[in-house]
Amino acid sequence: MDKIKVGILGATGTVGQRFVQLLQDHPWFEITALAASKASAGRPYGEVCRWKVSAEMPSAVRDMMVEECAPGLDCELVFSALPGEVAGPIEENLAIAGYFVSSNAKNHRLDPDVPLLIPEVNPDHIQIIEHQRRQRSWERGFIVTSPNCSVTPLALALKPLQDSFGLTTVMVTTMQAISGAGYPGLPSWDILGNIIPYIRGEEEKVEAESLKLLGRLEANEFQSAPIAISAQCNRVNTVEGHLEAVSVRLGRKKGTTPPTTEAVVEALRSFTALPQELELPSAPRQPIVVREEIDRPQPRYDCDQGGGMAVVVGRVRECPVLDYKFMVLGHNTIRGAAGGSILNAELLVAKGYLSA
Amino acid sequence: MDKIKVGILGATGTVGQRFVQLLQDHPWFEITALAASKASAGRPYGEVCRWKVSAEMPSAVRDMMVEECAPGLDCELVFSALPGEVAGPIEENLAIAGYFVSSNAKNHRLDPDVPLLIPEVNPDHIQIIEHQRRQRSWERGFIVTSPNCSVTPLALALKPLQDSFGLTTVMVTTMQAISGAGYPGLPSWDILGNIIPYIRGEEEKVEAESLKLLGRLEANEFQSAPIAISAQCNRVNTVEGHLEAVSVRLGRKKGTTPPTTEAVVEALRSFTALPQELELPSAPRQPIVVREEIDRPQPRYDCDQGGGMAVVVGRVRECPVLDYKFMVLGHNTIRGAAGGSILNAELLVAKGYLSA
Amino acid sequence: MDKIKVGILGATGTVGQRFVQLLQDHPWFEITALAASKASAGRPYGEVCRWKVSAEMPSAVRDMMVEECAPGLDCELVFSALPGEVAGPIEENLAIAGYFVSSNAKNHRLDPDVPLLIPEVNPDHIQIIEHQRRQRSWERGFIVTSPNCSVTPLALALKPLQDSFGLTTVMVTTMQAISGAGYPGLPSWDILGNIIPYIRGEEEKVEAESLKLLGRLEANEFQSAPIAISAQCNRVNTVEGHLEAVSVRLGRKKGTTPPTTEAVVEALRSFTALPQELELPSAPRQPIVVREEIDRPQPRYDCDQGGGMAVVVGRVRECPVLDYKFMVLGHNTIRGAAGGSILNAELLVAKGYLSA
Amino acid sequence: MDKIKVGILGATGTVGQRFVQLLQDHPWFEITALAASKASAGRPYGEVCRWKVSAEMPSAVRDMMVEECAPGLDCELVFSALPGEVAGPIEENLAIAGYFVSSNAKNHRLDPDVPLLIPEVNPDHIQIIEHQRRQRSWERGFIVTSPNCSVTPLALALKPLQDSFGLTTVMVTTMQAISGAGYPGLPSWDILGNIIPYIRGEEEKVEAESLKLLGRLEANEFQSAPIAISAQCNRVNTVEGHLEAVSVRLGRKKGTTPPTTEAVVEALRSFTALPQELELPSAPRQPIVVREEIDRPQPRYDCDQGGGMAVVVGRVRECPVLDYKFMVLGHNTIRGAAGGSILNAELLVAKGYLSA
Repeated sequence: MDKIKVGILGATGTVGQRFVQLLQDHPWFEITALAASKASAGRPYGEVCRWKVSAEMPSAVRDMMVEECAPGLDCELVFSALPGEVAGPIEENLAIAGYFVSSNAKNHRLDPDVPLLIPEVNPDHIQIIEHQRRQRSWERGFIVTSPNCSVTPLALALKPLQDSFGLTTVMVTTMQAISGAGYPGLPSWDILGNIIPYIRGEEEKVEAESLKLLGRLEANEFQSAPIAISAQCNRVNTVEGHLEAVSVRLGRKKGTTPPTTEAVVEALRSFTALPQELELPSAPRQPIVVREEIDRPQPRYDCDQGGGMAVVVGRVRECPVLDYKFMVLGHNTIRGAAGGSILNAELLVAKGYLSA
Repeated sequence: MDKIKVGILGATGTVGQRFVQLLQDHPWFEITALAASKASAGRPYGEVCRWKVSAEMPSAVRDMMVEECAPGLDCELVFSALPGEVAGPIEENLAIAGYFVSSNAKNHRLDPDVPLLIPEVNPDHIQIIEHQRRQRSWERGFIVTSPNCSVTPLALALKPLQDSFGLTTVMVTTMQAISGAGYPGLPSWDILGNIIPYIRGEEEKVEAESLKLLGRLEANEFQSAPIAISAQCNRVNTVEGHLEAVSVRLGRKKGTTPPTTEAVVEALRSFTALPQELELPSAPRQPIVVREEIDRPQPRYDCDQGGGMAVVVGRVRECPVLDYKFMVLGHNTIRGAAGGSILNAELLVAKGYLSA
Repeated sequence: MDKIKVGILGATGTVGQRFVQLLQDHPWFEITALAASKASAGRPYGEVCRWKVSAEMPSAVRDMMVEECAPGLDCELVFSALPGEVAGPIEENLAIAGYFVSSNAKNHRLDPDVPLLIPEVNPDHIQIIEHQRRQRSWERGFIVTSPNCSVTPLALALKPLQDSFGLTTVMVTTMQAISGAGYPGLPSWDILGNIIPYIRGEEEKVEAESLKLLGRLEANEFQSAPIAISAQCNRVNTVEGHLEAVSVRLGRKKGTTPPTTEAVVEALRSFTALPQELELPSAPRQPIVVREEIDRPQPRYDCDQGGGMAVVVGRVRECPVLDYKFMVLGHNTIRGAAGGSILNAELLVAKGYLSA
Repeated sequence: MDKIKVGILGATGTVGQRFVQLLQDHPWFEITALAASKASAGRPYGEVCRWKVSAEMPSAVRDMMVEECAPGLDCELVFSALPGEVAGPIEENLAIAGYFVSSNAKNHRLDPDVPLLIPEVNPDHIQIIEHQRRQRSWERGFIVTSPNCSVTPLALALKPLQDSFGLTTVMVTTMQAISGAGYPGLPSWDILGNIIPYIRGEEEKVEAESLKLLGRLEANEFQSAPIAISAQCNRVNTVEGHLEAVSVRLGRKKGTTPPTTEAVVEALRSFTALPQELELPSAPRQPIVVREEIDRPQPRYDCDQGGGMAVVVGRVRECPVLDYKFMVLGHNTIRGAAGGSILNAELLVAKGYLSA
């Protein structure tokens, strides 16, 4: 088929660069527009972008002229890597103008008519799109969002537990890589040999977004999952990969015993979902890889699993307070950002919301 | 007064070096014996010890001859920085021979007749010493122990909460510095830009030792505190200072509300205990420093608080699952190791168990 | 004596904070003014300054009101920690207004009538001050400068070699800590597990400033030292301490042999100069510490030598290309910045240029 | 063609693992033997090897039984990743038994009848093999060696300069990654936020091996290149990639001027040699990549250039002491170790010394 023309908003930032990198040989999508701030507009991408995700910028984008983040972009679909300070109205204006918007920004994630989407977790939430269009009187455009980078691995790991056993309580402590803060992000002085036990707004996002993702869509209303969740978020001295220590209480009835460790591991390991069934181009064959070594997952070794699109779980064991505890790791700028939004767009294509 | 002669077992290791450093100008103690493995015995300390805790080895110990870890050491009190593989019988042999043993090794911490001691937390546990001597038919010698380096800051922070409000549940995720693994400890290849989500035996120690520390001594039996506790322990890329994310449920009666955040902070901040009252030389004026900044404590800035003998708490806030959550940081080789054992010995002196 | 009132320009930056820290208990100087950008002026220092050099800001400055960097400051002497973008005219205006300016900024370092000063290296260069005043028609005020942070340890190590043997050629490769770039300075993304083989303007500074420092003042003109010098400057992943690999050719006559390694070491180790003779408060007892271990100096261990005011040399050995090579380390924000400027001011006091 | 059976000596170490990784899909070679110390022999590779070079060990070797490093291995060619403490006699014994040995160990590099080989630099040195066999009365087996990991990028960068302009003097300061020390290698305590300005034997290797590589083979004797060379070697806190600051004097006649910067860059960039001409499987298309950015090469971005087989040069500029200075970076465990030895073996195959 002809490829679908796509644009990238915020193309010069680190998540924007990941979009460029992941889309450069995409079978369904073709980058035809790169947009950024006014300061960059009108100049070649290779000149305004300080390329930071690998040794070399793909040659195909080097000479593309950066445009402003506004209607007029030559594409059908835009991926948004905009910072939260500006993303909200820009994304709306593009949707109004008829663009399909797959956003990684925080602004619309919790809107009552916008899907917050992980295709393995809540693919049915895309059904709200029609309602969104009606509500907003948008004829063609719409907005879908992908979650915060620390939410994605957590929600992916929780999903099979919720499906198989029910889930009532989640405690999570994150150890997040510096790339999650963008560029320039954290001053090196702050993080070398150090930990920052605070990331602005992050704990609230982990709590609220997880409940929307694991909740249900009923009669065009999102019902948050009935789960008690508490997050503590830390920035540590790693480059890529958010590692999270999770404890869960499973939703059994009173008086019954929780499942065995083997059953929990099996539920995680055997989990596949719609993206795997549809064989979406960016879907990892196995969304959750469970490692048996006592000391995994580790960010430096494991964050690239499945091309950075799988999450890695390890150390599944009983918790003396809740039922089970485990570690989960996800690549924060691939699965947790650009890759997640691309997978969302692939689902939309597969479901007929977009076509070339 | 004349100083009490002390020896250091395992004097060439990193914790042993901390003992040397902290004892070099101690008002009550004087290093008169340095002991290590057979391979080092008979040679000058300055020659066998690869000094690693600061720029220069104190000149007073440079020419001291290293001895074997066995009776015959010219001292009354020995501090043990021995590794767990060998500490058990060596410490016993010295106690049998009449030495007072203040150990930082894990071996005897959970013995039913050995105090596991933090002077601010459970100073009354030293009363078991008489029972220990009787049980073991030791005339004069005895063993007291200090807890694991990740336990000390946790137990110190929990103590005022237990005292003021009661405490039923503790969840903790640690981010521990590399110095906690000794020297050579972790290969740099394993930890640069990485996290190891596993430390052998650590989670079990955190859980068991905390309960003994917060428990009661009744009729010469230790009663573990009736607290549900769960720990997840991680090694991160910091040099000194174990940082821990803690959530607690306070022990209120059903139907009553938990205390306010202000009350929790006040309980932590105003906490002082016997070491402060007795003005023990190594006791920090304020054992728990509560910082109000949103992003503290941080290992690189805060681990030296109170000469490394205070712990630093921050981010006290409500927990959606339990009652409160907060961060706590302790210097792992000072308060969490050598400094803790020295403070224990100071308490013993103040209480008349030792004298010069 | 009464203390001399001093102000700090650029007091909220990292070098400014070092000035505050080093001056807090100074025997001769008392901080009476803190100045920074307009955005900070009029607000308490404790509010506008993100304190980064240690756990806690000295309480004495917390409530001091920050002022603008302009005449009107209540002090006689100002230390300048201003960035090069603004330092030039501000320092001049203050000198015009009669202030004594001891600057760490780059702007006036190479001015033909301004001393670039290391008190152990070229104390006689202060004699240009009278000429400076005349040239600029300044009645009372003047400017003295301290060198770039990577120049100071180099020049200190070269001075005794120049004095003892003569010096014709210097090759230096620096490995500089992140603190040298100020705050926020380097993004962590750029430097974690990485090296940046370039620091803007640094190589030129190393070359030009070293030659002025080691040169002579004759008839109110600075004569650059007749030395060929080449620098390669790198930013590495360390917190404090610039480490430099140096090779030198000594200035012997043709046909004669270079001095022995022992003679070179002895020249370095025995070096003392005017600040030591005058017992200036910030002068290290021994300006150059030579370590004999094969693997020193190391930044983490050795940069605090002499309170950060000594430099540490190691690995003195023959060079197959030039005559000798060695490593030298200096604390870049103490000796290489704030501490250096304070020592300069102490020299001026001792020489009668300032008094309380 | 049928693949040539190869074995790996020291297969469980980090360089051994790189051999396994790089050979897993090699077009000419097939791993048929894995050998290591007696302690590992007789057990499956997947069990004795702590795999450290990527997330997962190739499945093909997981169940291979590890053997002793002695004749009896089922292969024609052995790659040696043995440590210097044991490599010497083991490699000789295998050569005596008829094996072709391509070694990365230091032991035989400077032997007068053993080629120290970089195929782009001195491919003609393999002609000594016949002499080696005669000298040692070996009928079939022989030994070829690849240089130290810090020598390879240096020698590659120097070769086109030597060819184009002549070369008389080299000064080099290295900043070497921790992987160069093997596993466990450097304790993390030693290198976090630190630099170790010493690597045992390294400076001597850089100096001696470079001169052999750039020298000539005449009448079965190696003539060291007539170059004065001086090296300073440092271990820094990077994971992979040795970065080196180099200054050179080119070999022009007295009174003539050195070439222009452009000519130097062009000589480096346009350099190709026999491996490129022969299209050896592991040969990078362009052995020396010259980057024009002012701040490259950087280890984290650039060490994988050409699959880790190219070296990256940057910052070519005039040197005030010698003629030119520049930075060069090479992947130390690929081009500087396993990949280098594999390329050597490929050259031997192409030249008919080995065949399947």
